[in-house]
Amino acid sequence: MELEELKDMKQTPQRLAIIEYLKENKIHPTAGDVYKAVSERFPTMSFATVYNTLEKLKEKGMLVELSIDPGKKRFDCDLRPHHHLICIRCREVFDVFKDYYLELPEEEFNGFELVGMQVDFYGICRRCKELERKNIDLNL
Amino acid sequence: MELEELKDMKQTPQRLAIIEYLKENKIHPTAGDVYKAVSERFPTMSFATVYNTLEKLKEKGMLVELSIDPGKKRFDCDLRPHHHLICIRCREVFDVFKDYYLELPEEEFNGFELVGMQVDFYGICRRCKELERKNIDLNL
Repeated sequence: MELEELKDMKQTPQRLAIIEYLKENKIHPTAGDVYKAVSERFPTMSFATVYNTLEKLKEKGMLVELSIDPGKKRFDCDLRPHHHLICIRCREVFDVFKDYYLELPEEEFNGFELVGMQVDFYGICRRCKELERKNIDLNL
Repeated sequence: MELEELKDMKQTPQRLAIIEYLKENKIHPTAGDVYKAVSERFPTMSFATVYNTLEKLKEKGMLVELSIDPGKKRFDCDLRPHHHLICIRCREVFDVFKDYYLELPEEEFNGFELVGMQVDFYGICRRCKELERKNIDLNL
């Protein structure tokens, strides 16, 4: 995300803080996550400002809205093609950079022009697995 | 989707019409699509009734909310594991029933317990491609 590309957006300190947060925290945050972090520096900033800034960055193609948690908007500022690995316990999203070559069943989709694909992997992350193991050991 | 499983939901004719529509129209409809179709039979039915019924069916695990179009809720009543093929022109969603075996980069995700995966393919469907071809021929 380059600031030069945002020339027609007012560069208020609040907006810059939002952009800075997104650049430094590639955790696929929700608008709420961004608000929580950035409002510590700018206590008077409203949730609406954060939300509108994220929507504006999305319109400009500088953020992608993820469709991982239905009903929850999460944002990704890494625009390189990649896949996601989602922990079904803590809902953390990890980026997977790997090329997969998948073919569609030809008999059904002959004539369909494929332009891309994205894989969502689901599983349990190492941290959550360790936590579960500890809880079992402690008979929790 | 079996009606017997819905014993604790009031079986009003409107609700039954919604369920019937979902069973017969596997186009991954939005709440708006369902409302449009079912309100033709029940002109006094409100959008809220349709929306709440869909949410209730989702809570009961009888529908899945798709995360294909960020910002738009689409519903899938086919609960078998499958993938989706999305036309980037008309946004129609086709089901892809095929098993893919994909491995995660081991060096990064060693310790991650994979439980499932879902692929979203993107492309241009045959109908949209033909439409584009015709428009080019007609110099539209």
